[in-house]
Amino acid sequence: MPQKSYKIINDPVHGFIRISHPLVFSIIEHPYFQRLRRIKQLGLTEYVYPGALHTRFHHALGAYHLMGIALDTLRSKGIDISDEEALACQIAILLHDVGHGPFSHALEYTILEGVHHEQLSLLIMQKLNEQFNNALHLAIRIFCNEYERPFFHQLVSSQLDMDRLDYLQRDCYFTGVQEGTIGAARLLKMIDVVNDELVIEEKGIYSIENFLTARRVMYWQVYLHKTTIATEQMIVQIMRRAKELAQAGVSLPATPALSFFLLNRIRQNNFHESEETLKAFTSLDDYDIWAAIKQWTDHPDYVLSELSRRLLERRLFKVRLSPAPLPAAWIEERKQEILAKLPAAGYLPYFLIQGSTENTAYQTKGSSIQVLRKDGKLIDIAEASDLPNIKALKKMVKKYYVCWAKYN
Amino acid sequence: MPQKSYKIINDPVHGFIRISHPLVFSIIEHPYFQRLRRIKQLGLTEYVYPGALHTRFHHALGAYHLMGIALDTLRSKGIDISDEEALACQIAILLHDVGHGPFSHALEYTILEGVHHEQLSLLIMQKLNEQFNNALHLAIRIFCNEYERPFFHQLVSSQLDMDRLDYLQRDCYFTGVQEGTIGAARLLKMIDVVNDELVIEEKGIYSIENFLTARRVMYWQVYLHKTTIATEQMIVQIMRRAKELAQAGVSLPATPALSFFLLNRIRQNNFHESEETLKAFTSLDDYDIWAAIKQWTDHPDYVLSELSRRLLERRLFKVRLSPAPLPAAWIEERKQEILAKLPAAGYLPYFLIQGSTENTAYQTKGSSIQVLRKDGKLIDIAEASDLPNIKALKKMVKKYYVCWAKYN
Amino acid sequence: MPQKSYKIINDPVHGFIRISHPLVFSIIEHPYFQRLRRIKQLGLTEYVYPGALHTRFHHALGAYHLMGIALDTLRSKGIDISDEEALACQIAILLHDVGHGPFSHALEYTILEGVHHEQLSLLIMQKLNEQFNNALHLAIRIFCNEYERPFFHQLVSSQLDMDRLDYLQRDCYFTGVQEGTIGAARLLKMIDVVNDELVIEEKGIYSIENFLTARRVMYWQVYLHKTTIATEQMIVQIMRRAKELAQAGVSLPATPALSFFLLNRIRQNNFHESEETLKAFTSLDDYDIWAAIKQWTDHPDYVLSELSRRLLERRLFKVRLSPAPLPAAWIEERKQEILAKLPAAGYLPYFLIQGSTENTAYQTKGSSIQVLRKDGKLIDIAEASDLPNIKALKKMVKKYYVCWAKYN
Amino acid sequence: MPQKSYKIINDPVHGFIRISHPLVFSIIEHPYFQRLRRIKQLGLTEYVYPGALHTRFHHALGAYHLMGIALDTLRSKGIDISDEEALACQIAILLHDVGHGPFSHALEYTILEGVHHEQLSLLIMQKLNEQFNNALHLAIRIFCNEYERPFFHQLVSSQLDMDRLDYLQRDCYFTGVQEGTIGAARLLKMIDVVNDELVIEEKGIYSIENFLTARRVMYWQVYLHKTTIATEQMIVQIMRRAKELAQAGVSLPATPALSFFLLNRIRQNNFHESEETLKAFTSLDDYDIWAAIKQWTDHPDYVLSELSRRLLERRLFKVRLSPAPLPAAWIEERKQEILAKLPAAGYLPYFLIQGSTENTAYQTKGSSIQVLRKDGKLIDIAEASDLPNIKALKKMVKKYYVCWAKYN
Repeated sequence: MPQKSYKIINDPVHGFIRISHPLVFSIIEHPYFQRLRRIKQLGLTEYVYPGALHTRFHHALGAYHLMGIALDTLRSKGIDISDEEALACQIAILLHDVGHGPFSHALEYTILEGVHHEQLSLLIMQKLNEQFNNALHLAIRIFCNEYERPFFHQLVSSQLDMDRLDYLQRDCYFTGVQEGTIGAARLLKMIDVVNDELVIEEKGIYSIENFLTARRVMYWQVYLHKTTIATEQMIVQIMRRAKELAQAGVSLPATPALSFFLLNRIRQNNFHESEETLKAFTSLDDYDIWAAIKQWTDHPDYVLSELSRRLLERRLFKVRLSPAPLPAAWIEERKQEILAKLPAAGYLPYFLIQGSTENTAYQTKGSSIQVLRKDGKLIDIAEASDLPNIKALKKMVKKYYVCWAKYN
Repeated sequence: MPQKSYKIINDPVHGFIRISHPLVFSIIEHPYFQRLRRIKQLGLTEYVYPGALHTRFHHALGAYHLMGIALDTLRSKGIDISDEEALACQIAILLHDVGHGPFSHALEYTILEGVHHEQLSLLIMQKLNEQFNNALHLAIRIFCNEYERPFFHQLVSSQLDMDRLDYLQRDCYFTGVQEGTIGAARLLKMIDVVNDELVIEEKGIYSIENFLTARRVMYWQVYLHKTTIATEQMIVQIMRRAKELAQAGVSLPATPALSFFLLNRIRQNNFHESEETLKAFTSLDDYDIWAAIKQWTDHPDYVLSELSRRLLERRLFKVRLSPAPLPAAWIEERKQEILAKLPAAGYLPYFLIQGSTENTAYQTKGSSIQVLRKDGKLIDIAEASDLPNIKALKKMVKKYYVCWAKYN
Repeated sequence: MPQKSYKIINDPVHGFIRISHPLVFSIIEHPYFQRLRRIKQLGLTEYVYPGALHTRFHHALGAYHLMGIALDTLRSKGIDISDEEALACQIAILLHDVGHGPFSHALEYTILEGVHHEQLSLLIMQKLNEQFNNALHLAIRIFCNEYERPFFHQLVSSQLDMDRLDYLQRDCYFTGVQEGTIGAARLLKMIDVVNDELVIEEKGIYSIENFLTARRVMYWQVYLHKTTIATEQMIVQIMRRAKELAQAGVSLPATPALSFFLLNRIRQNNFHESEETLKAFTSLDDYDIWAAIKQWTDHPDYVLSELSRRLLERRLFKVRLSPAPLPAAWIEERKQEILAKLPAAGYLPYFLIQGSTENTAYQTKGSSIQVLRKDGKLIDIAEASDLPNIKALKKMVKKYYVCWAKYN
Repeated sequence: MPQKSYKIINDPVHGFIRISHPLVFSIIEHPYFQRLRRIKQLGLTEYVYPGALHTRFHHALGAYHLMGIALDTLRSKGIDISDEEALACQIAILLHDVGHGPFSHALEYTILEGVHHEQLSLLIMQKLNEQFNNALHLAIRIFCNEYERPFFHQLVSSQLDMDRLDYLQRDCYFTGVQEGTIGAARLLKMIDVVNDELVIEEKGIYSIENFLTARRVMYWQVYLHKTTIATEQMIVQIMRRAKELAQAGVSLPATPALSFFLLNRIRQNNFHESEETLKAFTSLDDYDIWAAIKQWTDHPDYVLSELSRRLLERRLFKVRLSPAPLPAAWIEERKQEILAKLPAAGYLPYFLIQGSTENTAYQTKGSSIQVLRKDGKLIDIAEASDLPNIKALKKMVKKYYVCWAKYN
């Protein structure tokens, strides 16, 4: 236990974040958590929004801070919450993303083989639980939605959780996209708990609507921005190629942590079978990836060096986005242009990628947002009579894209 | 003409507003425009949001400022705009609201008899045009949508005009309702002109969506806030009663300007028939109304003094809002409670008011927002394939209300 | 006591202000306090900064809010504060300015005859204490610095009180003068109490320095802005003339509350001798003043109507500010210019006014800011070794001015 | 030349940054400039302020943006500025910091041997000038203060340059230290040019004062924050040790770029003698440093691995700051504590470091801020009569520190 039992952390988004419990303080000081300082929240989005450099460390602290406010509000409305529950719930949100690796969404299927970050968050929480003498037991139950009072889990993970409330506001602040501004303070004043379920007061429905729309704006203007899609495809192809080369025995400069994931095909079970896997994973961060890409710019393999150089110097893939699949003839033209430049036809799949992406602004499946009407009844927000557009937000929007390397 | 030909005005919303043309400067210095300093933009909304004290003067300047940015953007995109057109368009927006009186929406049908503020804005612009040797001729044509290039009028008055862009941001700033934040700077970067019609670039559709949703939020949380409805009904009833008393020959303390409107029944034609009417109107502002209400708290007429005292001391009408008309039995109960306290049954209509209010977040009638697709085609934003909710916003939302005086 | 025992008030400056104690709620609902809604915090400053329309009502609530944060901080540092003390201290700050009249600084010596607003605040607190069954007893003792733990009074009134912390931030927000921004949240984290005296932690000295400099900037750019000086002199001369006329028996349109102060010469003792004086004073607000000035624009008295018209139409006095008294010859020239236009030479003193104004950014007399060094010693902040400029801020800066009416 | 000749870059600090000239666009796209994306503006400050992750890339663009505003202002005041001069001045500010390496201030004397970043900025500008057919000729003359109109250089580098104006505001935004807020927009409205020298209008002196104080606050709360000093000392000792080991032939994992600087002792002249040096330097960024430190945590050398691990896991040096040198006895105690834990006494200098740091908030030497009085005279701002504290800011403040490794 540290001597100094509390700490104040500066946050331009929320002001000051106060860490007052020694266990929370110790978790934050733990290398597993400090590692999040080296993982950017939005990966390569900085190539579109140069301010978007904030880390998962800062987001986790911000969500922790909002959880404190949410719990205070609920208590002030008469909801009985024990100190033990409050602490567990705050730890659960603090660690909800601790299993993220570098460029997480992009690399979940290249460096790893389909291991989801939630599973790794849970694994790391369990390791910490061992180290802290079972002190995270209740936090884990809440995280896994095994605790008998579901609103604690809903505060950690639902359509209206502290995760979303923090990241929308934070991503907005660092990108500068004002349209994503949400009134988190106002929303937090209007949450309540009925039958141990999280609900929102009726007067909060316009704030919710605004929150859902803001999220939608952020999806299309930031998270699924076409340049971000292109950039992520570049890093995916780089890592895919690096892994193929490594597995084929080609020598590649890389840090030990990265080498481990290039040489081995890591699935979920590997984490349980050997300590080494988790050790390597918790050593891996953005710096390993970038240091490797920088060195690979001189690698003899054409694909690896060409893509690495392009990414480093920000000569990005072109991208075309469309509500329908793109015309085959047009794609064929792009292919021919690239093939005319490539040293080998087999390289084409690294230089032209087709795919699709989709987003549903409001999901009712599993975790709808419940509104507490003044007459005491609960209704799904999509059923509120004067919000015709929430229903519309349930419709999934799908976009097709082609990314390709432009040669001059 | 003033000696000093330019001026910088501090604006917490937009930073600095620069007035560089001497004609604009002279219009701002004119008593007709200075009068707007004494008319609050949001009337009685300060009773719900105590910061909402900003004036129509400040809003007009802000809209003028945004118009300058909009015109610069269009010119930088190659739209040919002459200096004369630019000046006229800026004057048109500067004066678009100059015909507002105090508590305009509330008093349009009590102090005046159905005279709309647009008609008075036009009348005042015509008077100024006479005084400034016809220098406002083109501004008036633009204001009236008589100019051959419609986009100038659309910048002044349409679904995406500088009026809305300023007031949403300004009302948001002074009320503190963050959900209404719009990225005006971003929106203004994305306007363009096609065939002399104002359009928005395709990449701007999420900003438009956010703008429409923000507007909707402001409608229900600010402009049609139930306490504001109640408060406006109070001032309407006070003025209705005062006018009835005045017309019946009862003596009432009031400034000369207010007395004029209490003693006479002013319709649109009165403004054209006598100079006196416009003189009285341009002398009238919030101060006349409040000074009268303050004095009426001691008036022997029960209705007038009771309502004035309640408004002054912020003992407001209760209000109940509902998507359907309120139950007759419940209304009857309220009536009986009030009748038990009133000295005369005939006073009831001043103490219990029924009504309805409605809002459509996106109107296509007449002035839809046109999106310029990358293929050069124009489509109505409600037809954009991945914005299912704009269509939904076309649905009108109507609410019924009852306001009533609560007696203890 | 009201049914609903708490309330949330929107504040664009601090977010949400929560009123949780029924006594505080009742005080806010009292007409004495509601009256502050009709008194602008910065009087005529709106003529320079059009956004500066915020009221003493809003400021009092903001200071109350900061007091809550300050008390929470001190408690979290182990300072023993009873609930009774906390409530009293919050009421004291809520009511510290309740004795302000309209255009307070300007009219303290014209409408009133040298009655200070602190004395009236105390008087009104005593009246409220009677109405609320002695519940404000401790608040009054704290306000008067009669309570045995001086830090409570220091939180209400000292160089580092919640009054200054709120008004600097609020005036900044509404004027748009960014230089006045202070990190109130940070400052509040660093206050502490030693021997029942308010102190600041050593690491807070740069924040204090910034706070003092910000205050200085606000003095010269806002509070003592030369146009504000000119405008205040205009209202002083208008009221001086009106009072002279009234006392000489000339008929003047005015509300009853204003007439009372024009016809009578009210000193401190009048408030104690008759209930009528306080009743008139608590009926008086900005609306009475403006409604009168508007009517006086047509008054037969040249001085009264000329000055009223100039103020209303914003044709303001010119002003020249100087570190030394202005040259006699130059002043004489101005006088001659004015005399050439005036109908009577005796009117000159209303149209050319000489005076001086001064400001000391840091005062040690009586209430210096004490710094708590890490070694536990207390020192005056001006003695802190690495803040050479605080000492300099103790120097009083005096400026001489002449305001005069410009005739064309 | 790129096809698309302009670009808009999102900046949460200034809104939108517009790049309209193709040469500026090409410079920004150049790998020398893109490299600044990988160098944090504030180095290790993120360990104190987790949001302080902004890069030199973003700062350079921000300063470029402010330069555009400054030049527009000067032109609007009638200063004759040719398009060629304006472009050159904007390029000069864009590239003023292009010679910074990773953790620049810390590593100027370890990785390099006393090579200043200004010299490297100039060298890189000269290389770019060659590549762009001498198009940067005038920019270089302005940067070197060799152009005959000195105000252009003063806008790039002086007490009131666009560099400081951007970094203060930006550092403030990303750290969240509100006290550093400056009204850059207001300051920029008040600059002028007299005899080709940059001056500030008299009414701007309070803004200048605020700017100098804000800078001072940022120095002590951010740039010279004691934890930042400690952290920088750690990275200095790590690199010092790494270089010693490398020079002694010990094998060390490192990227080729970093290895180059560990194996060679690079002075200014090396850059001129071989292309390789500049190539290595422009390949080096934060990622090389962090990737190395991460790997060195497992190095057999005690000093290197111990310090690397401590830095990575944020177990930082303790630090004590004092206006006078710290007592010898106290330092001796610290040394004994450390020696008791160290495997070799010779390692002590890596684990306890003494030093001093100093700051002068306003420097008159060489580049004082000139105020243009209304009478047309120029005076040094420190001589302005009502700014006693500027003089005080000329006093240098020096602080002594000891940093040491704490063993449990």
